[in-house]
Amino acid sequence: MNIGILGYGTVGRNVHKLLGAVDGVSVKYVLEQRGKLTESFMTPDPELILSDPDIELIVDALPGIHPSYEYMKEALSHGKHVVSSNKAAICFGFTELHELAKENHVSLLYEASCGGGIPIIEEILRIGALDDISRVSGILNGTSNYMLWQMDKAGMSYEDALRDAQRLGYAEADPTADVSGFDVKNKIIILSSLAFDGYVEKDIPMIGIEAITKEMMDGLRAQQKAVKLMGIAVKEGDRYALAVTPVIVSSLSLEANVPLNFNIVSFEGNYVGEVKLYGQGAGGDPTADAVVRDILKVARGDAACYERHFTKTLAYDPSLLRGRCHVGDRVLEDAVLAEASAQAIREQVPFAFEFNA
Amino acid sequence: MNIGILGYGTVGRNVHKLLGAVDGVSVKYVLEQRGKLTESFMTPDPELILSDPDIELIVDALPGIHPSYEYMKEALSHGKHVVSSNKAAICFGFTELHELAKENHVSLLYEASCGGGIPIIEEILRIGALDDISRVSGILNGTSNYMLWQMDKAGMSYEDALRDAQRLGYAEADPTADVSGFDVKNKIIILSSLAFDGYVEKDIPMIGIEAITKEMMDGLRAQQKAVKLMGIAVKEGDRYALAVTPVIVSSLSLEANVPLNFNIVSFEGNYVGEVKLYGQGAGGDPTADAVVRDILKVARGDAACYERHFTKTLAYDPSLLRGRCHVGDRVLEDAVLAEASAQAIREQVPFAFEFNA
Repeated sequence: MNIGILGYGTVGRNVHKLLGAVDGVSVKYVLEQRGKLTESFMTPDPELILSDPDIELIVDALPGIHPSYEYMKEALSHGKHVVSSNKAAICFGFTELHELAKENHVSLLYEASCGGGIPIIEEILRIGALDDISRVSGILNGTSNYMLWQMDKAGMSYEDALRDAQRLGYAEADPTADVSGFDVKNKIIILSSLAFDGYVEKDIPMIGIEAITKEMMDGLRAQQKAVKLMGIAVKEGDRYALAVTPVIVSSLSLEANVPLNFNIVSFEGNYVGEVKLYGQGAGGDPTADAVVRDILKVARGDAACYERHFTKTLAYDPSLLRGRCHVGDRVLEDAVLAEASAQAIREQVPFAFEFNA
Repeated sequence: MNIGILGYGTVGRNVHKLLGAVDGVSVKYVLEQRGKLTESFMTPDPELILSDPDIELIVDALPGIHPSYEYMKEALSHGKHVVSSNKAAICFGFTELHELAKENHVSLLYEASCGGGIPIIEEILRIGALDDISRVSGILNGTSNYMLWQMDKAGMSYEDALRDAQRLGYAEADPTADVSGFDVKNKIIILSSLAFDGYVEKDIPMIGIEAITKEMMDGLRAQQKAVKLMGIAVKEGDRYALAVTPVIVSSLSLEANVPLNFNIVSFEGNYVGEVKLYGQGAGGDPTADAVVRDILKVARGDAACYERHFTKTLAYDPSLLRGRCHVGDRVLEDAVLAEASAQAIREQVPFAFEFNA
């Protein structure tokens, strides 16, 4: 099978490297910027790749929504399979891209878009084929977890933790997507759509970690608690709710003990019970590993069992997500997260959520 | 596809129930004891099931090595696929059963044998198809973890914790397999064979939790540590070692915070890094869920990607597993686990292992 790789950053390069050891898959073209065309397989022309009838599968390893979204649409329209690591573009065009893949009888796989090498999507689909999944939640952003961990364990200030994350390459020069919750939002939308087998609302409550202070953490630690940035999605019957928010958890929970830039995701099936997956949620090698596993599913003809049809009509009902809401210095018991977090934004005070016991 | 179920305890009954919602698979016979034949599909005659040419797949949901092992051999010889939840029989006949499946071009799947509904084997095979896995370890027995948890958190004595586990149905009247480490031994042998892609030694160091006292736990807690019964397997090049032993872990580790009768397993791939899976390691519904997922792999024709060929010739080298060994009151730094644990058995003193920092 001939493939084309769009983008030759850390992920694209690592995918190319890993494919070197895989029989039956060869990289025909790599899309690269005009000034960086150092190899004969590199081209700056996306059309050359997207319209080449020899190429059966396109790897999207570009960052950001555009032009990834347009390239994926074109590839699917031309009957090519698409494997993507780009959560922003996958989330943005979730419905349209899936419909296009279905119309053209090709696969659209994106394990690497959520949780790097951790096989979260594989397991949600496997378990979801048999179970009714009623909850997905987790620590889905390594950068913000690294910062919270350093604030909690090394006593760093928010600013020092951010500089430390930038120094290690975990955070971008502009860290907004990581600290504001936007990255987590993309991921929880993708994961809950797959878990609940329906297209979900994208305009959801989103609170980041910008307002979390070392003092708040010290106070929580004294109560045997910790705070983590989490994506949460719950379903009851055909109603569901989702949110991105700082969550206060027991210091004895697995979540509280997820260190550094690691991720954890939980889901709850009616037969299997609670399952959690933990690992490196980012980085070139783990992410490339997930991309190549997706390519192998297509190459070996077993991608069909990793398809969802989003057949359920689900109703967005934010009132399903309720619990103890911390709005500034006040604690609202059994309040609706969407309302309490909106109030915190209006009043410009910090917000955190705690599940009802 | 017609299937036959051997055994109608919690697992067999739950498999039957779950299959009710699955198209294309029907249960033709269930093997049941003579006095319990309440339904027309039940028979006490294994030959009726194992030699029926209509039956393409046999579910082994019996306990213990015999006659499960013999039934599985016969089913495979007759060209039937086998799905088993029976770790004792799978571990006992690991090589022979796999060779038979290969000769007869049928599948032998046993996700439910290790970790109930947690998709441990699936993920080891998926990740192992691309990565070199150098380590598998984990809390693989819910009963012993429940007892240690109650001793640590509720201050119970070993005897009270055992009675409590028996009252809840977690421990058998004879709890030997759980507390002695034998159950974990079966599982770590199965998991490491799959992870390392070779048949492994079965005569390995095995220490259970019988000698662990509340006092030992109190001392560890004061040092921010905890003790957990774990299976461990490591590989370096073509050499490997395995063991079952109480392991002393940091109270900040995920392992230390695995509550009640839950399980966790970690593995380390050269690209994906460290991945951990957590969930209910036993129970009728989770285990049946895993059995049915295996049946679906066969029914949908994608079982081939869940096969290992055990092509690697591996050398058992116990000296690979070394660390801080607690032998009674003494601490041996950087000692070989196999030697130190044998010494503890000879001297009839407690043993625990701690990884080198």
